[in-house]
Amino acid sequence: MTDLISQLRNIVGDKGLLLGDDISSRSGGFWQGGPLQAKALVRPQTTQQVAEVLKLCQQQQQTVVTQGGCTSLVDSHHSSADNIVLSTERMTAIEAIDTANRTATVQAGVILEQLQQSACEQQLSFPVDFGARGSCTIGGMMATNAGGNSVLRYGMMREQVLGLEAVLMDGTIISSMTPYLKNNTGYDLKQLFIGSEGTLGIITRAVLRLRPQPLSSQTALVATDDFTQVSQLLGYLDQQFNGGLSAYEVMWQDFYALNTGEHSHNKPPMPADYNYYVLLEYQGNNPASDAQHFEKILGEAFEAELIVDAVIAKSDAERIALWEIRDDAETEKTKFGCFLHTFDVSLAIGDMPLLIEQLHKQLEQAFQHYELLVFGHLADGNLHLCIWEEGMQRKSEVENIVYQEIAKLQGSISAEHGIGLEKREHLHHSRSPAEIALMWTVKKAMDPNNLLNPGKTLPAQK
Amino acid sequence: MTDLISQLRNIVGDKGLLLGDDISSRSGGFWQGGPLQAKALVRPQTTQQVAEVLKLCQQQQQTVVTQGGCTSLVDSHHSSADNIVLSTERMTAIEAIDTANRTATVQAGVILEQLQQSACEQQLSFPVDFGARGSCTIGGMMATNAGGNSVLRYGMMREQVLGLEAVLMDGTIISSMTPYLKNNTGYDLKQLFIGSEGTLGIITRAVLRLRPQPLSSQTALVATDDFTQVSQLLGYLDQQFNGGLSAYEVMWQDFYALNTGEHSHNKPPMPADYNYYVLLEYQGNNPASDAQHFEKILGEAFEAELIVDAVIAKSDAERIALWEIRDDAETEKTKFGCFLHTFDVSLAIGDMPLLIEQLHKQLEQAFQHYELLVFGHLADGNLHLCIWEEGMQRKSEVENIVYQEIAKLQGSISAEHGIGLEKREHLHHSRSPAEIALMWTVKKAMDPNNLLNPGKTLPAQK
Repeated sequence: MTDLISQLRNIVGDKGLLLGDDISSRSGGFWQGGPLQAKALVRPQTTQQVAEVLKLCQQQQQTVVTQGGCTSLVDSHHSSADNIVLSTERMTAIEAIDTANRTATVQAGVILEQLQQSACEQQLSFPVDFGARGSCTIGGMMATNAGGNSVLRYGMMREQVLGLEAVLMDGTIISSMTPYLKNNTGYDLKQLFIGSEGTLGIITRAVLRLRPQPLSSQTALVATDDFTQVSQLLGYLDQQFNGGLSAYEVMWQDFYALNTGEHSHNKPPMPADYNYYVLLEYQGNNPASDAQHFEKILGEAFEAELIVDAVIAKSDAERIALWEIRDDAETEKTKFGCFLHTFDVSLAIGDMPLLIEQLHKQLEQAFQHYELLVFGHLADGNLHLCIWEEGMQRKSEVENIVYQEIAKLQGSISAEHGIGLEKREHLHHSRSPAEIALMWTVKKAMDPNNLLNPGKTLPAQK
Repeated sequence: MTDLISQLRNIVGDKGLLLGDDISSRSGGFWQGGPLQAKALVRPQTTQQVAEVLKLCQQQQQTVVTQGGCTSLVDSHHSSADNIVLSTERMTAIEAIDTANRTATVQAGVILEQLQQSACEQQLSFPVDFGARGSCTIGGMMATNAGGNSVLRYGMMREQVLGLEAVLMDGTIISSMTPYLKNNTGYDLKQLFIGSEGTLGIITRAVLRLRPQPLSSQTALVATDDFTQVSQLLGYLDQQFNGGLSAYEVMWQDFYALNTGEHSHNKPPMPADYNYYVLLEYQGNNPASDAQHFEKILGEAFEAELIVDAVIAKSDAERIALWEIRDDAETEKTKFGCFLHTFDVSLAIGDMPLLIEQLHKQLEQAFQHYELLVFGHLADGNLHLCIWEEGMQRKSEVENIVYQEIAKLQGSISAEHGIGLEKREHLHHSRSPAEIALMWTVKKAMDPNNLLNPGKTLPAQK
C-alpha cells in the first residue's frame, strides 16, 4: 500500500495525490451521502499520467474508479475504501476550437458550461444541454452517453463525438482523435468507451462536433385531449419545422396540475384540466419571419384539431416561465415532503398510454394511496415517472412494478441516466441473458481482471 | 463436406441452398471479376436459420462470408472456394412501418430503394442515399456503415439504427430491437456490428429511424476563388439554413473542367476557370417562400464576397443537370480510356489545400504525366481523389503516395467505403498499432476461431 501510494506520487506529483482528510472532506455523492471513500485520489494532468497510473494499478491488481463531475443519477462514480479514485479535475484544457472544421478538442475534465461558452464565443454551439451543465464534465458525459433536452434535434452525446482518446487498464493509450464525420477504417473503437461508464477504459480527450448557433427560437405550451393528438402533432411539427423542432416535452395532466397548482410558484398559463401538455421549441433560420411562421403552423394544428389550446411565449421571461413548469422538482417536495421514486424509461411512443394504464392498475392494487406523475422527452421515447406511495418506504416494490411493465413492452429501464450501481441488478428487465453475456465477453477481453469501475453497469455473473 | 452440405440443406431447405453451377453462374464482383466462388451458398429466411447455420459452421470450423447486395467498393463481400457464403437475399421483409414512432422494422436483405419507397408511402423518409440504392441491402449498409450524399444533415447509417439483431458465430442471437432514440442500458452492443463488415456477427434485422419528408428543396452551383471562401461559406450557409443544408459537394477546378468540357455530355452552367465549385442543396420548410429565402442568402454570400458566381436550379431538370456534373464518372473514361485510380479519404477541412498541394508535388516527382481530379462531400471532411498516370500500371505507387500524405495529416484512408479486402494492408496509415491490437482483441473475443469473413477489415497479425 505505502509502496503503491509513493509510486502514484511519483507519477502525478504532490498536487496530483490526495489522501486521508483531503478525500473524506469530499462528499460521497448525492445518493450515497457521507464522506467520499478511497485508498487514494489521483488527479493526473495528462493522458500519459493516466496511462502510467493504470499500468501501475494493473500490476498491483488495484481497482480504479474514474470520477468527473460526480453528477451521475445512478451512482456510476461511487467508490469504496479499497478503490483508487482517478479524478479528471485537473484535465480541463479546451485545446482548440477549430472554426473551419467546426470542432472542439478538449480534455475529459472540461465542464460542459465552459465548452458551451467557448463555442459561443466563436459563433458556434455545443448543443447537448441539461441541468448539471455547471458541474458535469465532458468525459463523464461521454462515459455515460448523456442525453438531455435537445436529443430530438442533435442526438445524444455519442453523436457529438468525432474522435476520442482513452486509456485501457494495462496502460495502453488508444488515440483515435479524428476530427471528421466519416471514418470507416475498421472497428469504430470510440463506440466501446462511450456509454460504458468507465468500465472498459478511461476517456482522456475528445474531438467534438460543434454546430451553428440557432438564429431564432420560438417556444409554446400547447394542450391536447388525447394521446393520438400528441403523437400526430409530433409528426406534423417535425415535418413543418424541418428538423428545427428542438424540444417536444410532454406533461401528463397530474404533473402539470401539481406544478401549476397551490403548492407551486408557477403561474398556470392555461387551465389544468386538459389531458396532455406539450412544451415545444422551434429553432428557426429567419428571425424576421420565424415568429409569424411558428404561429401559423400552430394555428393550422389547431384547425386540424391536433391541439385544443396554446400559449406562445412572447418574451424570454415567458419562455423561462414555461420551462420552469416542466423542470420544477421542488413542488413535489413541498407537497409530499420528499423527493419521489423516480424512473427514466424509454419505449415506443405508441405504447405509452398502455404503460401508464397498466402502472395505474398495478399501483392501485399494491398501495392504498399513491400518485403517478408523468412527463418526459416524448419525441425520444423517453418518459420520466415520479411515484409517491404512503410512507415512501417501499421503493423496491415500486421498482418491480415499473420495471416489469416496462419489460412487457420491450422498453428500456434507463433511457439516459445509465445503469451504474443503482440499476445493475435490474438490467435483465431490458437486456436478454445473451446480451448481458456478450457485454461480459467484451468486458473480460478489455479488462480481464475486472479492475475498472468494478461492480458497475454489468450485473454480477452467476 | 457432404455431411456439412446435407446438414445445411436440413436447415434452409432445397430452395435455401445453392451449389455448383448455381454459384459459378453468379459474378464474383465488380473488382474481382470471374465467377463467384464458394463451397455452398445458403439463403436463410429467418434469424433462427442464420443461427443454426452459424452454429453448425462453428462446430465444423467452417468459414462464412456474408453477402448482401455485393456493391462493396473494397471487396468486403469477397469469397473463395473454401467459404460458405450466407446471402440475405431471401430476408427481404419490411416487417413494419410505425408512423406514430416513425420507425421501420426490416430484415437485413431489404433493398435500400424499397425501404425508401415504403417510407415515402407513409409520408416519411429514410434519408441515407447513394448510387447503389437499387441493389444495396440495409444489412450491408449497416455492416459497412454506409454514408452517401446526405450525411451532413442526417448522419451515416450508424445514426439511423435504433435497434439491431445479429447472430454470433456460435449461433447466439443478440436481439436488441429497441425502437427508441435513447437506451443507456449497459454497453450499446449494436455499435459492435455496425461498420465491422461482417467480421463480428451477421446482422439479421433492424429498427431504423425514419424522418419527415422535406417540404421543399433548393439547389445551386456556386463558384469561389479560394479555399478559405469554401470553408467560410459552409459555416455561413449551415447557420443560415439552420440544419437544412443537405448537400455541400465541392469540385476542384480540374474535375469541373473535365466534366463540363469537350469529352462530356454536360453543358457548363458557368465558366470553367474558377478554382472551386460547390453544389449545394437546402431542404426547407416553407414552400411558399423558400426559393426567395435561398436566393436572398446566396445574394448575401455574394455581397460578403464568399462566392464569385452562382447558378440556381429553376426546375427539376436543371437540378438533375447540376448533379450530373458532380456524379459523372463516364467522362473520365471517355477521356482517359479507363476508370482512374480512386480514393475515398477524410481529413480536417482546413488541411485539404495542403493535402492537394503535397499530392501534386509527389505525383510530379513520380510521374512524367499525371492528372489529379478532386471532388467530394467536403462538409463531412470527405474527398474523393481520381488519379491518372500514363499507362495506369502503377497503382501501388499511387496508393503509397496518397496514403502517406493522408497519414501525415492524421487523415482517414477510408471515409465511407470501408476496408474490406482492398485496404486492409493499408489500415496502418490511419490506425495505430494499439488501435489495431484492440480491434483484434475484440475480434478474438467474439469470433475466437476467425471464421466470420476471415481476411477482411483487420490486417494480418504479425
